Amino acid sequence: MNARPCHHPSIFDRFARVGGCLAVGGLPLNRLAARVGQTPFFAYDRSLLSRRVAALRAALPPSIHLSYAIKANPMPAVVHHMAGLVDGLDVASAREMATALDTPMPADRISFAGPGKTDDELTRAIAAGITLNLESPGEMRRAATAGQRLGLPPRVAVRVNPDFDVKASGMQMGGGPKAFGVDAETVPAMLDELATLGLDFQGFHIFGGSQNLNAEVIADTQNQTIDLALRLTEHAPARPRVVNIGGGFGIPYFPGDEPLNLDAVGANLARLVPRLGAALPEARIVVELGRYLVGEAGLYVCRVVDVKESRGKCFVVTDGGLHHQLAASGNFGQVVRRNYPLAIGNRIDQPTEITAEVVGCLCTPIDVLGRTAELAAAEVGDLVVVFQSGAYGKTASPNDFLSHPPPREVLV
Amino acid sequence: MNARPCHHPSIFDRFARVGGCLAVGGLPLNRLAARVGQTPFFAYDRSLLSRRVAALRAALPPSIHLSYAIKANPMPAVVHHMAGLVDGLDVASAREMATALDTPMPADRISFAGPGKTDDELTRAIAAGITLNLESPGEMRRAATAGQRLGLPPRVAVRVNPDFDVKASGMQMGGGPKAFGVDAETVPAMLDELATLGLDFQGFHIFGGSQNLNAEVIADTQNQTIDLALRLTEHAPARPRVVNIGGGFGIPYFPGDEPLNLDAVGANLARLVPRLGAALPEARIVVELGRYLVGEAGLYVCRVVDVKESRGKCFVVTDGGLHHQLAASGNFGQVVRRNYPLAIGNRIDQPTEITAEVVGCLCTPIDVLGRTAELAAAEVGDLVVVFQSGAYGKTASPNDFLSHPPPREVLV
Repeated sequence: MNARPCHHPSIFDRFARVGGCLAVGGLPLNRLAARVGQTPFFAYDRSLLSRRVAALRAALPPSIHLSYAIKANPMPAVVHHMAGLVDGLDVASAREMATALDTPMPADRISFAGPGKTDDELTRAIAAGITLNLESPGEMRRAATAGQRLGLPPRVAVRVNPDFDVKASGMQMGGGPKAFGVDAETVPAMLDELATLGLDFQGFHIFGGSQNLNAEVIADTQNQTIDLALRLTEHAPARPRVVNIGGGFGIPYFPGDEPLNLDAVGANLARLVPRLGAALPEARIVVELGRYLVGEAGLYVCRVVDVKESRGKCFVVTDGGLHHQLAASGNFGQVVRRNYPLAIGNRIDQPTEITAEVVGCLCTPIDVLGRTAELAAAEVGDLVVVFQSGAYGKTASPNDFLSHPPPREVLV
Repeated sequence: MNARPCHHPSIFDRFARVGGCLAVGGLPLNRLAARVGQTPFFAYDRSLLSRRVAALRAALPPSIHLSYAIKANPMPAVVHHMAGLVDGLDVASAREMATALDTPMPADRISFAGPGKTDDELTRAIAAGITLNLESPGEMRRAATAGQRLGLPPRVAVRVNPDFDVKASGMQMGGGPKAFGVDAETVPAMLDELATLGLDFQGFHIFGGSQNLNAEVIADTQNQTIDLALRLTEHAPARPRVVNIGGGFGIPYFPGDEPLNLDAVGANLARLVPRLGAALPEARIVVELGRYLVGEAGLYVCRVVDVKESRGKCFVVTDGGLHHQLAASGNFGQVVRRNYPLAIGNRIDQPTEITAEVVGCLCTPIDVLGRTAELAAAEVGDLVVVFQSGAYGKTASPNDFLSHPPPREVLV
């Protein structure tokens, strides 16, 4: 293949090639585009999803329960496939809950997290029998009221904002003042109240950060998380049946990113599990993952509409853009814009010949998929592929911006 | 009203108050929320839209044609209302074109700009009889081919990437190498080819940048734009019937932003118009505006779901968020996050009592609507209002992120 020295080679080698064309599930992209009936589209590889879960099962202790946070990719076919592989699903809204409940996953293995749950969402979740991860005392009281109305004891866990910081995370979700969960130091008082409200206490959800590529940091976070869970258990109204220690496993997006050392994470968990198991033999230890399960199994595919030159620069103009893949444009929470890995999918075996700005079809200068990208010689009709697009792609993008057609999605 | 020294007072005073509650079109927001049937929603004020166009008519020379770039707010009711006020519409996609064609605006007053027009879009635009703003020689040839197939001469203007830079623009769209339009210095060669292709030449579209608050810079840009149009006219296959000099008029979003001095812009145009009129008496001079026409007429309204404290900070948690109003969260092309103007809409006459983080309902730390915001004492059930939300709100946001309900929109 052509040299892309900056992005990790595993990103490009994960997908097969058929006749010089990148393939998903054995189907070359140009044929897949014809089957889908339009560009742009997202293609997710079923076997890569399965292989990722298998790799986790191999690296982590067998007693670890894996939960899929479907916000990363809520396409129903993906959620169904994942439901057959993992031990639980986490949802962040009523619509995600409905998707999860449509799979064979039992309701008691579905959890609902999110700082702004409405009364309607709480009521629906309680009726469904899923577990609410409580984000505040106020939410706890509203859940209790909703449960009384329904005549059902709400299943609840307490989402804890840890009293430690997680370093080197793409997104820090815990430590310091946060909108998420209940400050660890105020959890005991909340548990005292919880015991009086007729709630069915399940355990704790402790989550420090996401998109972390450093196994040492993840291990350190897990150690502190388990310590915190054991401390909080002393105040619990019942012995926890669930300790969700979060996830935060990252995937490499940018030049220089190295894949997470899963074996190191697994070795640390292997030390932790017996300790937690001795103290809390009834508790499932849950690792909750979104991006790590699905992110590397997906491609975003758009078509070259124009190749033009402007004052010495080559512009490859596509029918895609930030309305489908906002994060790849560098406009979704990133401070510095860096290229996602990308290539001309139907020329995947051809050498790098051009340096181009790969842009979308929108009338805005921020609609850039690749800046100074090294590519095979692209022509109108070619397929531009953005790798690492299986998580936070379509649904995390402003699909209606400029009222272009939404991307299609296909699980192959 | 409570002191908000940083944001320009005109932002807060534009909307009436009824019984201590902010009102849109005379309806207090709490009643409007009941009429809409849900929060969150966007509310656009019909009379403010009309007043903005009237202010432009008063300040700009009467011969200036105003075009509304509907990408700023493509809600059909808004587009219909605007179609009755302005002289033309600009669209950026086939769906926007369909919305524009559903209004009484004649097809020959509708233009289509965008760097990635597909063959399908070109064909539909030619069949509709609207004007294509050509972005490259390649697009020109594809348009000619599509016109031949239809047996119709495509109406075309040439979008020009100026040979000058526009300073102090929120988004620079011209000057240097760009994906937009044709470099000014290569336009003559393109016009030579255009003359041979059976295209119905309309004129030029020259657009340098958007969201500019500096009247001097806008005036300077307009002067250079007219010079460029006159120079390019020497190479045109027919006398231009349209010279679209763009717009780029900004609105104040952030602390310290001052509203654009429209009179100064108008005074400059009053000097330019006779000059251009003498040289090109057949040409309509078009000022194309999106954000400036609709941005200040809209509010984003969401409801407080929780008020919580975390380690000394107050968090006001709403049922809204960046999935509806991405730009207000600071994650849409902004380098530095600053607060959009916001307030508790149903306590608009109450004094500032709290300093809070106003966050959305999403499980991500970037879902912030107001950082260290000074607010009336907010309670669960209150309505948080984000001002300056009439442009690039709903459609410029990832509505499906975490699968929450989309915001509704209402024109009052």
